Amino acid sequence: MSETKGKIAVLTSGGDAPGMNAAIRAVVRTGISKGYEVYGVRRGYNGILNREMDLLTFHDVSEKLQHGGTFLFTARSAEFREEEGKKKAAAICKELGIETLIVIGGDGSFTGAKNLSKYGVNVIGLPGTIDLDIAYTDYTIGFDTAVNTAMEAIDRLRETSNSHERCSVVEVMGRSAGYIALWCGIANGAEQILIPEKFDNNYDKLIEEIKNNRASGMTHQIIVNAEGIGHSYGLAKKIEEATGIETRATILGHLQRGGSPTARDRVYASVMGAYAIDCIEKGKKNRLIGYKEGHVYDVDIEEAFQMTKSIDDYEYEVAGILGTRCEYK
Amino acid sequence: MSETKGKIAVLTSGGDAPGMNAAIRAVVRTGISKGYEVYGVRRGYNGILNREMDLLTFHDVSEKLQHGGTFLFTARSAEFREEEGKKKAAAICKELGIETLIVIGGDGSFTGAKNLSKYGVNVIGLPGTIDLDIAYTDYTIGFDTAVNTAMEAIDRLRETSNSHERCSVVEVMGRSAGYIALWCGIANGAEQILIPEKFDNNYDKLIEEIKNNRASGMTHQIIVNAEGIGHSYGLAKKIEEATGIETRATILGHLQRGGSPTARDRVYASVMGAYAIDCIEKGKKNRLIGYKEGHVYDVDIEEAFQMTKSIDDYEYEVAGILGTRCEYK
Amino acid sequence: MSETKGKIAVLTSGGDAPGMNAAIRAVVRTGISKGYEVYGVRRGYNGILNREMDLLTFHDVSEKLQHGGTFLFTARSAEFREEEGKKKAAAICKELGIETLIVIGGDGSFTGAKNLSKYGVNVIGLPGTIDLDIAYTDYTIGFDTAVNTAMEAIDRLRETSNSHERCSVVEVMGRSAGYIALWCGIANGAEQILIPEKFDNNYDKLIEEIKNNRASGMTHQIIVNAEGIGHSYGLAKKIEEATGIETRATILGHLQRGGSPTARDRVYASVMGAYAIDCIEKGKKNRLIGYKEGHVYDVDIEEAFQMTKSIDDYEYEVAGILGTRCEYK
Amino acid sequence: MSETKGKIAVLTSGGDAPGMNAAIRAVVRTGISKGYEVYGVRRGYNGILNREMDLLTFHDVSEKLQHGGTFLFTARSAEFREEEGKKKAAAICKELGIETLIVIGGDGSFTGAKNLSKYGVNVIGLPGTIDLDIAYTDYTIGFDTAVNTAMEAIDRLRETSNSHERCSVVEVMGRSAGYIALWCGIANGAEQILIPEKFDNNYDKLIEEIKNNRASGMTHQIIVNAEGIGHSYGLAKKIEEATGIETRATILGHLQRGGSPTARDRVYASVMGAYAIDCIEKGKKNRLIGYKEGHVYDVDIEEAFQMTKSIDDYEYEVAGILGTRCEYK
Repeated sequence: MSETKGKIAVLTSGGDAPGMNAAIRAVVRTGISKGYEVYGVRRGYNGILNREMDLLTFHDVSEKLQHGGTFLFTARSAEFREEEGKKKAAAICKELGIETLIVIGGDGSFTGAKNLSKYGVNVIGLPGTIDLDIAYTDYTIGFDTAVNTAMEAIDRLRETSNSHERCSVVEVMGRSAGYIALWCGIANGAEQILIPEKFDNNYDKLIEEIKNNRASGMTHQIIVNAEGIGHSYGLAKKIEEATGIETRATILGHLQRGGSPTARDRVYASVMGAYAIDCIEKGKKNRLIGYKEGHVYDVDIEEAFQMTKSIDDYEYEVAGILGTRCEYK
Repeated sequence: MSETKGKIAVLTSGGDAPGMNAAIRAVVRTGISKGYEVYGVRRGYNGILNREMDLLTFHDVSEKLQHGGTFLFTARSAEFREEEGKKKAAAICKELGIETLIVIGGDGSFTGAKNLSKYGVNVIGLPGTIDLDIAYTDYTIGFDTAVNTAMEAIDRLRETSNSHERCSVVEVMGRSAGYIALWCGIANGAEQILIPEKFDNNYDKLIEEIKNNRASGMTHQIIVNAEGIGHSYGLAKKIEEATGIETRATILGHLQRGGSPTARDRVYASVMGAYAIDCIEKGKKNRLIGYKEGHVYDVDIEEAFQMTKSIDDYEYEVAGILGTRCEYK
Repeated sequence: MSETKGKIAVLTSGGDAPGMNAAIRAVVRTGISKGYEVYGVRRGYNGILNREMDLLTFHDVSEKLQHGGTFLFTARSAEFREEEGKKKAAAICKELGIETLIVIGGDGSFTGAKNLSKYGVNVIGLPGTIDLDIAYTDYTIGFDTAVNTAMEAIDRLRETSNSHERCSVVEVMGRSAGYIALWCGIANGAEQILIPEKFDNNYDKLIEEIKNNRASGMTHQIIVNAEGIGHSYGLAKKIEEATGIETRATILGHLQRGGSPTARDRVYASVMGAYAIDCIEKGKKNRLIGYKEGHVYDVDIEEAFQMTKSIDDYEYEVAGILGTRCEYK
Repeated sequence: MSETKGKIAVLTSGGDAPGMNAAIRAVVRTGISKGYEVYGVRRGYNGILNREMDLLTFHDVSEKLQHGGTFLFTARSAEFREEEGKKKAAAICKELGIETLIVIGGDGSFTGAKNLSKYGVNVIGLPGTIDLDIAYTDYTIGFDTAVNTAMEAIDRLRETSNSHERCSVVEVMGRSAGYIALWCGIANGAEQILIPEKFDNNYDKLIEEIKNNRASGMTHQIIVNAEGIGHSYGLAKKIEEATGIETRATILGHLQRGGSPTARDRVYASVMGAYAIDCIEKGKKNRLIGYKEGHVYDVDIEEAFQMTKSIDDYEYEVAGILGTRCEYK
């Protein structure tokens, strides 16, 4: 095609997240419709170093939208982590005529992108992680699906905990961030929520509250424990020993990463994918795409790394009021 | 209880929406925890006129969070619609010592609330409708669940449409607004989306595009049709006759109103329910609670009625680019 | 491959059903593992007439098991319905060296297969229909998924019907058979179940019972109406007019055909697919595969067409006792 | 009610299973409709010893059918396990005029029932366990739901395993029986299935096959491991060390016990509940209800304990052929 506006490559990197396929599809279809050639890179940054990439057509991304995972595969790349690797990747992009690289991933992947940009590759980032732990954006692809998956699992746990009148400790993902745990805590009406941002390691108080809840008539209790706190099996044992209430632990694990994306993950991933192409159309360089205050937006990648964000204090307070009976007997 | 801070009543009105139970629960538990007595009114405004209400305890709202519908029931009230009815309702509230009435419903219910407030009852509104068609807020309780329910149904339709290589017209709810249709359109990768805000009744163009899509290799196509456009059976017939492609219509109907609420509907409904009590604590009068730019907020009820909102043009544009192949063969 | 044991072709025909992909996969993988070449025919019998078929590998059927629909597509063939068409199809099979044709479909597809067998093609049938209306087998691929899909939709309808205290008429698929309706009736605790095998068109009695139920305290009611009875919108109107109870109709439609198959549909379809190859291994000719009394079995195609089956009377009786309150006030 | 035919009590015992509520509902409604008084006993056999039981009405079991768990709660009873406990329980039944006790539970609960019957209480058992490990019946309440729950979780795991090209070891419930694991193995297309009935502890062979699979092009693999084998974390580590393929373990845990029952669990539990009352009507004593060869039936409790059953060899063989590529490269 002589009339192409240029070559764009897209890859997914780091942990996979439901909605990544929707984002890739939007990049490809919008890119093509605006006159670009779009290449799909396999296995993250490795795929550049290994030149594993193909020109994608409108049809190649059919029937992808509704599936979890990433059809481009994802991986972590030891070679790319080195400065030499980034230099080599940039050289390959240049050689192949790839002007812009769209990276769908989390903080680690964006650090790589930022450094790659120093070698002259224009990088555009889309936030893809179930953990929601990216400062510049209120939304990350996969969080909504992961929360709903975990919530449905905990709904099930509540039913059996209720039948047996026991405590259940359930560990949800989130790495060092407590967003999934907080949301599940509210959505599942958890009696206790332990998140790294707030939990003070006061297990005595925790056990006291569990006892008080039981004394005030709660026959079963759900304790949502964030991955960042961990040690769920030990915690269950500690609770059972201290309270005499039968207690079981479940670590939900990787199933939280899979599954058909929710409407929100599909819609926002699609919008951000299209928006990434629009940024390229406008000649923008080295931007991260995100949602801020309800709207899609883009921010300079260097600036984005200066930002911080934290757990919503009001949500945390509400979770405490709604879940725990003991304070207002 | 001598130390009560006052009496609050809560009701659900208009069409039910998943998450209403979560909102009631949050009102009741937060209300109790802050020192109020909270009464649950049954069957909307009728319940005031008929004095159908009970003092609710912390326990009465257990195991409600995860269920669709509203355990307080909902109804439309002919008597309350009259000025006399509102006067009577206000008198009953006064007689029973109910200072604040929390109304969970849509635009129609809020009109009732606004008028009731003129007779001296403090009213607080929470947006409860799957249609998202309330101007002052970016979020309404039930929308997220309804969209996901419709989306999952359309995912199923796509599979069978694909196997048979046919067109499917699927009608989703939303009354005169196209929000559900637009979101499903993007989330399901619909080839066509017909919404009242945008569709120009140019059926010839629609049919031309369906033909072009088929000619360019799309073996099956999904047309999401908003309730506000309607006539889905007729549309399917028209498409089949004009294109020769086998076409079937499905009207999803009331199942879109039911089902266990999504995490977002549970979390936002819980936060807004708690926030309503906080407004009362702060002495606020006649406010509507909503989400604006990602945050819970409250607005004067009169002011709220001056606001307008519309379909997101960018989302609509993205939907068109991602769904239709014919433009860029 | 010189050592091949022969060529087998597989196709899906008639209405699609969740689990068809699992059956195809089992045919292909078992076939290959036992030394056959297996061809996938596209678009039912048309695919033979048009020579649309490909040799399938172990890998070609990866990631198909969990998806509804049929990746071989399905269609009805006017040409094949004629005797000339069958003669031509048999000639093509002979020319291409296809000794056995495995047909996954319903009664109509098996009639075609039976007649094709007279021209010397060995045919093996697998029951693929959501309607369960095949006499020789207790199980048909897709029924279990369709019932669960309909049941979940009706669970949603019950929630909103309950909130509004209304009647809901819900029409489920099944063509002229009432199996899906009866199962949903029991599974959803329907107050009324109308199926072609049993309903005597006594609408006066139906309306009387609905009134009695309401009088005895049932605030909402679900009437499951089989496709074979139909006229759901009219029925809803009739009920509303005669009882004064607000009544809404929903026709679930084609979404009942789609969706990821249940465990049972995947397991039984897999077992029957493998069993089909075993029949070929044993030199069996013109057999239909099915489940009888809990076990997979095969029966001569001519014999199968002599069999009859009917609704389980005990299940129907139980449905009546569990659903209707009016008899034992 | 002077005209009562007698008093029946119903309880759930042992591990809870989805569908138990459907069974209780059917017992209560059929019992009432046939003229009995039906008492719901709370917390298994403890509820008799503690006289925790209530007369149930038709309405008391409304809106229970669709929920997992057991609204009568369940527990294990140390006191009842002793001979003295059984004697006491029988005396209480006699004192209260309870002629028949319906027990919904597993093998352990039936042993208790059998021994209780020796003290003159008529016992009727319904098989309630997700494990399917009761010899006299082909179906147990909860198995179908548990398998589908596990299957959906493993579908999710496959998506993320695929994206990362890793192995996943997933442990499913079943106590010492491999039924859930075998069914998930087939339904999820697992590359390996480890069940107590078949696995010979030959981990070297297992690892060899995993290597062969990878060598033949399988980028990701699912190993379904039965609870009866266990040690999933250790197994994952062993595989990773021996093969160099990144491997993760997930123990699905108690979430497999919860969740809204599938159609089959609701229908079969309802039919068996009704059938239990019919047995009482016919004057039958000390019977267990089950499904055999597709039909509901009853068997003498002593006889039932003589029966044995085992994994379906053909299903196991099919699972092996469909899942493992290495044998026929």
